[in-house]
Amino acid sequence: MTDYRAPLRDIRFVRDVLLDYPAHYRNLPGGEDATPDMVDAILQEGARFCEEVLSPLNKVGDREGCVWSAEGVSTPTGFKAAYRQYVEGGWPSLAHGVEFGGQGLPESLGMAISEMMGEANWAWAMYPGLSHGAMNTLHAHGTPEQQQTYLTRLVSGEWTGTMCLTEAHCGSDLGLLRTRAEPQADGSYLVHGSKIFISAGEHDLAENIVHIVLARLPDAPEGTKGISLFIVPKVLPAADGLPGERNAVSCGSIEHKMGIHGNATCVLNFDGAKGFLIGPPNKGLNCMFTFMNMARLGTAIQGLAHAELAFQGAIRYARERLQMRSLSGPKAPDRPADPIIVHPDVRRMLLTIKAFAEGNRAMLYYAARLVDIAQRAADPAKREEAEGLLAFLTPIAKAFMTETGFEAANHGIQVYGGHGYIAEWGMEQNVRDSRISCLYEGTTGIQALDLLGRKVLMTQGEALKSFTRVVHRFCNAHADDPALAEFIEPLARLNQEWGEATLRIGMAAMQNREEVGAASVDYLMYSGYVCLAYFWADMARVASGRLAAGDEDQAFYQAKLHTARFYYQRILPRTRAHHGAMLAGAETLMGLAAEHFSLGY
Amino acid sequence: MTDYRAPLRDIRFVRDVLLDYPAHYRNLPGGEDATPDMVDAILQEGARFCEEVLSPLNKVGDREGCVWSAEGVSTPTGFKAAYRQYVEGGWPSLAHGVEFGGQGLPESLGMAISEMMGEANWAWAMYPGLSHGAMNTLHAHGTPEQQQTYLTRLVSGEWTGTMCLTEAHCGSDLGLLRTRAEPQADGSYLVHGSKIFISAGEHDLAENIVHIVLARLPDAPEGTKGISLFIVPKVLPAADGLPGERNAVSCGSIEHKMGIHGNATCVLNFDGAKGFLIGPPNKGLNCMFTFMNMARLGTAIQGLAHAELAFQGAIRYARERLQMRSLSGPKAPDRPADPIIVHPDVRRMLLTIKAFAEGNRAMLYYAARLVDIAQRAADPAKREEAEGLLAFLTPIAKAFMTETGFEAANHGIQVYGGHGYIAEWGMEQNVRDSRISCLYEGTTGIQALDLLGRKVLMTQGEALKSFTRVVHRFCNAHADDPALAEFIEPLARLNQEWGEATLRIGMAAMQNREEVGAASVDYLMYSGYVCLAYFWADMARVASGRLAAGDEDQAFYQAKLHTARFYYQRILPRTRAHHGAMLAGAETLMGLAAEHFSLGY
Repeated sequence: MTDYRAPLRDIRFVRDVLLDYPAHYRNLPGGEDATPDMVDAILQEGARFCEEVLSPLNKVGDREGCVWSAEGVSTPTGFKAAYRQYVEGGWPSLAHGVEFGGQGLPESLGMAISEMMGEANWAWAMYPGLSHGAMNTLHAHGTPEQQQTYLTRLVSGEWTGTMCLTEAHCGSDLGLLRTRAEPQADGSYLVHGSKIFISAGEHDLAENIVHIVLARLPDAPEGTKGISLFIVPKVLPAADGLPGERNAVSCGSIEHKMGIHGNATCVLNFDGAKGFLIGPPNKGLNCMFTFMNMARLGTAIQGLAHAELAFQGAIRYARERLQMRSLSGPKAPDRPADPIIVHPDVRRMLLTIKAFAEGNRAMLYYAARLVDIAQRAADPAKREEAEGLLAFLTPIAKAFMTETGFEAANHGIQVYGGHGYIAEWGMEQNVRDSRISCLYEGTTGIQALDLLGRKVLMTQGEALKSFTRVVHRFCNAHADDPALAEFIEPLARLNQEWGEATLRIGMAAMQNREEVGAASVDYLMYSGYVCLAYFWADMARVASGRLAAGDEDQAFYQAKLHTARFYYQRILPRTRAHHGAMLAGAETLMGLAAEHFSLGY
Repeated sequence: MTDYRAPLRDIRFVRDVLLDYPAHYRNLPGGEDATPDMVDAILQEGARFCEEVLSPLNKVGDREGCVWSAEGVSTPTGFKAAYRQYVEGGWPSLAHGVEFGGQGLPESLGMAISEMMGEANWAWAMYPGLSHGAMNTLHAHGTPEQQQTYLTRLVSGEWTGTMCLTEAHCGSDLGLLRTRAEPQADGSYLVHGSKIFISAGEHDLAENIVHIVLARLPDAPEGTKGISLFIVPKVLPAADGLPGERNAVSCGSIEHKMGIHGNATCVLNFDGAKGFLIGPPNKGLNCMFTFMNMARLGTAIQGLAHAELAFQGAIRYARERLQMRSLSGPKAPDRPADPIIVHPDVRRMLLTIKAFAEGNRAMLYYAARLVDIAQRAADPAKREEAEGLLAFLTPIAKAFMTETGFEAANHGIQVYGGHGYIAEWGMEQNVRDSRISCLYEGTTGIQALDLLGRKVLMTQGEALKSFTRVVHRFCNAHADDPALAEFIEPLARLNQEWGEATLRIGMAAMQNREEVGAASVDYLMYSGYVCLAYFWADMARVASGRLAAGDEDQAFYQAKLHTARFYYQRILPRTRAHHGAMLAGAETLMGLAAEHFSLGY
């Protein structure tokens, strides 16, 4: 996959045509700098960096992996030079505040760059990617001095950041965490404990790493209400702010894992490391949750990235590989066999990947527009509305886009047949790299509980209505368009069924709390398919209009319309499976005693 | 996963109780030696070998992989010693004819041993496993001299075998193959060409390897009608039959692949290697197809194996890992959190794995019984009936069991959360190892064409009826049993729908051949879910009867009944998705021009 091509054509379609980003930026406070010309120049320059610098290192990273020694972690060949180019190009500061040295451009533009970087080389992209959580935390909760010392250097890319949450005995359940922080006379803290699964926790790309660490104060209440946040830099800044003395934090080992070999997943040992409280004591988890949504959207991007890579790899191979004749007669009679793209089942796989890649891209930039509005709109009501919709869509985007991204990556292997299993084609790396996305930043199960339990049922369904209203308005607006009937009718039906099914689950959950968990993942996947049906209907609307208007790019819009039809007729029936399963009730899961699940072992 | 436990309890249930193997063996010519005591002793001894010898090498094989040098391929530490124990234990000869030094026991018993060996260490099990194709070919088509020289040494395990089909430019499409065989004055041939993806093609476990090679005679017709079979031994037997001179076949390299690292996937170069024609000239592919079914059932076992491994790994972790409290109140109040098996979504994953592992096991031993009958029954009508049913079930077993095995392996990762991505737990290896099973021995797409095109439509639906009749009789026999109504009613409905949908696709295919390929994979998966519904209904029947009769093993049968319910209520709704997709028609796939699938790259 060294020949990654940034999908600028489709990114522009989604942003400029489908979602009208030019108008969105014009109306966004601080968005006026993001003129169409400026945006396009940035996208093009980003695409070039991704294609020419990052993509060629993707396979290198997988093959070499990171190397641990007591002195630190070495990243694969070329990673450090690429990071230098990234910093020199000004990429880290793109969407950060001018008061900290940033360029102040909208977050949604940063997300477009993240999409391309993630597609080109997810393992590499995680090093700067992990800084975002630390930057957001410092931005919202840091003192002016902390911001001056740490945030400005993260924004410039001189330093990188991490978020240190997980411990060996606690992942999803942070209430169990044991790392502790002892107050010192000078106002600082000494942090003791061990963290695992710290992505980009140690590396040789930057001169310092700013760890944001969850730990307990001595008098902290038990559970999640006793967690505080600390800044623990790898190297303590000296009085002039430049790196000074080495802090007592060290990387004990790195994990041997299924994929993402180019990114170090670290065990970090804090042996009385000097730390600084950030935000109010015991409110660490609340502070974290503010930014969890952004981290989850970041992971949603990974789902999109692997689907896009699968598509690029599979479409090339399907056009080149000659094997068997078409069932309806030779299509390349002058060659020894037909290219496999003539075979219907190969097309089924290609179109499935395409429907997920392009559909998920529409969902991502829809969410990204909400991020901009939530962050910047002048009208508080608009901010609140965008926040609500975003809170609802985020667990769907995170889990659905990564689950379908993994599925797409697997179709990528399958199109290659046995060759897909061989490292040289890059398709098996794509599957291995993608598998983590359904696990970290909250597993699919955790996202599903967040969606159905926290978001939908705790708001009495209001969160769901924030989106079904959007769909309802859309269906009403186009109810009389015969060209769109094939989309609008099933979409309107599903949109109504979604609310009814939610009500049934909510009623059942009032009798038995287990009904929430029992329905959750099927509910999330069902919701994802309905969301994507909305985005595909909207893309069909645009395509249909452009085709009727005689747009010069007929082929592009024909493909959009065809893929929308494919999605409705071939993929959307999956809602029937999830609908059946999510309404099957908790007894199907809870009725078997734990000790009887297996017998004899 | 070094603590693999052979699932003898469930194997015995399926064989002895569900399918009444004791009566089956009593009625089988040559099966009288397979007394219940003998069978049980063999299963126990096999289980011990798998648990104690093979399983501990599973992770070693993955980590070390095979090492290529110009002298040959070295297998991972311990593989050679394990192979010696395997030969000394008499395992290779278990189910082979006494006339070639075998023990003459039924094939189905060999398949039970294959299940356990495959679960313990699939990469290792492929070395002896690949011999089967060579043995079957020699058995059916070899001259007495060829059988004496080669078959007896394969049966004893002194030598191993391979099947050399694939070339770089031809996998599914063997008509394109180019390897050629030149006749020599002495009646032998010189084979020239290069084969790829030859599993177990070179190794250090045995003193000789017998390659069965597909090649073309000089005057051969083009395409699949011009392929002949040749025996090409790695070492040419001397006059006394013992290994003599090294033949001109060499391993050029081994593949770097996603999993199954312990098994060498070889490029084999035949540089004028001495070969011997086996079977009639130009009929090689027909000879091969006779045994393809067995190889496909062998791969179906791999699907079962990975589901079983996923279940064993996941159930242990789900009972031990403490994380979060149950939504309905603490279940382990004296511990810091509840074991994750209390959470409904973890149970959903565990039960999904369990439903596939145990359901697929029932399907496998049902097919294995048919293998015995097809091979040995005295009555030709019985043999023919069994052959027909087996021909129909084989592509379903191969593709459905491997696809669901891969899904189960992924649930195995998911139950572990982030830890599932880390090598030490073995769950990610299970996913990597399982992925190949949907590709080799004919991809899922090839199986689906075989099922719908060759088997079902070319027989005007007769092949399908051979199985729907079984289901129909079952449903009729139990139509009045209220305890089974929850299974019988939906099963009978599906069984009827299966025929109706087949008819619709068949009618459409008469207008447009592309309809076959367009429906094929969804048709196969639909068929698989209906088949499994039959096996789960049958298991529910037995369980329900045993529970009513007060069987002492109430817990085992309660679990069976519960899992059957889970399958019907939570998994069977997937038939709705596949039903919708398989009837969506070819236009959804063929309506987009190949050059418009992607634009700009």
